[in-house]
Amino acid sequence: MIQKLIRQIQEKDAPIVVGLDPMLSYVPEHLTKAAFEQYGETLEGAAEAIWQFNKEIIDRIYDLVPAVKPQIAMYEQFGIEGLKTFRRTCEYAKQKGMVVIGDIKRGDIGSTSEAYAVGHVGTVQVGKNRFRGFDEDFVTVNPYLGTDGVRPFIQVCKEEKKGIFVLVKTSNPSSGEFQDRLVDGKPLYQIVAEKVDEWGREHMGDTYSYVGAVVGATYPEMGKALRHVMPNAYILVPGYGAQGGKASDLAPYFNRDGLGAIVNSSRGIIAAYKQDKYASFGSRYFADASRQAVLDMKLDLKQALGKGV
Amino acid sequence: MIQKLIRQIQEKDAPIVVGLDPMLSYVPEHLTKAAFEQYGETLEGAAEAIWQFNKEIIDRIYDLVPAVKPQIAMYEQFGIEGLKTFRRTCEYAKQKGMVVIGDIKRGDIGSTSEAYAVGHVGTVQVGKNRFRGFDEDFVTVNPYLGTDGVRPFIQVCKEEKKGIFVLVKTSNPSSGEFQDRLVDGKPLYQIVAEKVDEWGREHMGDTYSYVGAVVGATYPEMGKALRHVMPNAYILVPGYGAQGGKASDLAPYFNRDGLGAIVNSSRGIIAAYKQDKYASFGSRYFADASRQAVLDMKLDLKQALGKGV
Repeated sequence: MIQKLIRQIQEKDAPIVVGLDPMLSYVPEHLTKAAFEQYGETLEGAAEAIWQFNKEIIDRIYDLVPAVKPQIAMYEQFGIEGLKTFRRTCEYAKQKGMVVIGDIKRGDIGSTSEAYAVGHVGTVQVGKNRFRGFDEDFVTVNPYLGTDGVRPFIQVCKEEKKGIFVLVKTSNPSSGEFQDRLVDGKPLYQIVAEKVDEWGREHMGDTYSYVGAVVGATYPEMGKALRHVMPNAYILVPGYGAQGGKASDLAPYFNRDGLGAIVNSSRGIIAAYKQDKYASFGSRYFADASRQAVLDMKLDLKQALGKGV
Repeated sequence: MIQKLIRQIQEKDAPIVVGLDPMLSYVPEHLTKAAFEQYGETLEGAAEAIWQFNKEIIDRIYDLVPAVKPQIAMYEQFGIEGLKTFRRTCEYAKQKGMVVIGDIKRGDIGSTSEAYAVGHVGTVQVGKNRFRGFDEDFVTVNPYLGTDGVRPFIQVCKEEKKGIFVLVKTSNPSSGEFQDRLVDGKPLYQIVAEKVDEWGREHMGDTYSYVGAVVGATYPEMGKALRHVMPNAYILVPGYGAQGGKASDLAPYFNRDGLGAIVNSSRGIIAAYKQDKYASFGSRYFADASRQAVLDMKLDLKQALGKGV
């Protein structure tokens, strides 16, 4: 799957992943109205509105973008109905040939992490049958519990040729509170990154590992250091755009081969029609605004990173 | 809700929480057979078997035990159907008067943590209505992203009079890999504990805070130190029993008032009938074995902790 991701990035010439993190307030009125007419102002209605929103965005960007990253919390907040839309969104994006990165940030003690891995990137046994509860290609993993909380994901991913992105340095303002604390003169995120490098050697693709890392765009100097600590890790970079990360800061996240990083934008793409810049599309053509925002992001990255990417 | 938890612990004279972390292999054959006859060897069949298993255990222990802690991963592995059983289990335990601690270990950047909080301990707005996606009384939270990943949970909990338990020192073997690393001469788990104490002051009950901590039974010397760092925090203690934690090690987790900690046992209670000790109950009376295991755990804790508890 890391091969597929890299191939898609090369073919589409775009190291871009679109975060499908819909708030109900992002969904244009004509979609919520139709969904509420059908299901009422209920969890089902909300889930339907979000599904229609996602579907239209995927339809308008799948030929440009290698991957989507649905943030499961945005679905989980609507309970079971929301999670049905999460599942359906993952399935649909895969049908359209996209790679799906489930942003689930799970992580627990060994036996529990195994259950998460089975549920999101593997299969669960029921009697003589095996099923996929959810079915992402990659998932994000929280490392706070250490190796035995991460390795079950790697084991399942080995069987499935799938992968993970481990949280190393997150994009949020208070990420430094614990992640930047110095341990033996090195920040904790670097200690985690060294582990990511070690875990990654257990599950290598041709050039990159199936074990990647999350490093926020908002901390470019750290991105540079971490690129060297984890030469084989694909870096998933959140924080571009709405969170303040600039394209000009992103070059250090990439390797000399022009690969090694994939930059996420969520709100900046999926709610593009709400920005002044794209307001002329109007809410009915919100997905065209998203498409234009992808094209603009692609150009922005290209100008900042050179044609090597 | 922290008041309710304390009151329940006092009334039932048991600082015990039962982890409802069912593996399909724990469910006795007569239950899986009945469920598979109705739904086939499907995710629905598995979810039904686990629901019947949980229900019977709750029915046999609710008068003895103040709280249950369903581990969501064990349900999530069965996808949507499994999560329906998670929801149903939480609802049923609450109907029986128990406090429900959702062991979800979520944690993300602010806006995303807010969605998790809304989904698990709050309400989500859809049009003019508000709904509860899931509905636990407490949830466990992963602190790796720092204050802005934790505070949205606290905000929602303030409105709802609910609470959280923040992972400080987990019970698994490799928990020390990052959690024990020294930062300014102090282990990271202590730095996290100091934050828990600080966060906890924002949301106090009468005597204890709504912001508790997870500290594994398997590291008693750390439990002792952490008790002092977080005097107002209720400590949720996993790792007793099957994971190797002993009752005799648990005294330091409690305060002088005999309160301040609640000890979890999962497998040791819910799969008790599989142990030699309780084999005579037979698989059909698995829930009676669980009840006996609760009584034995209660006695074990009482002997080790003295009658102060």
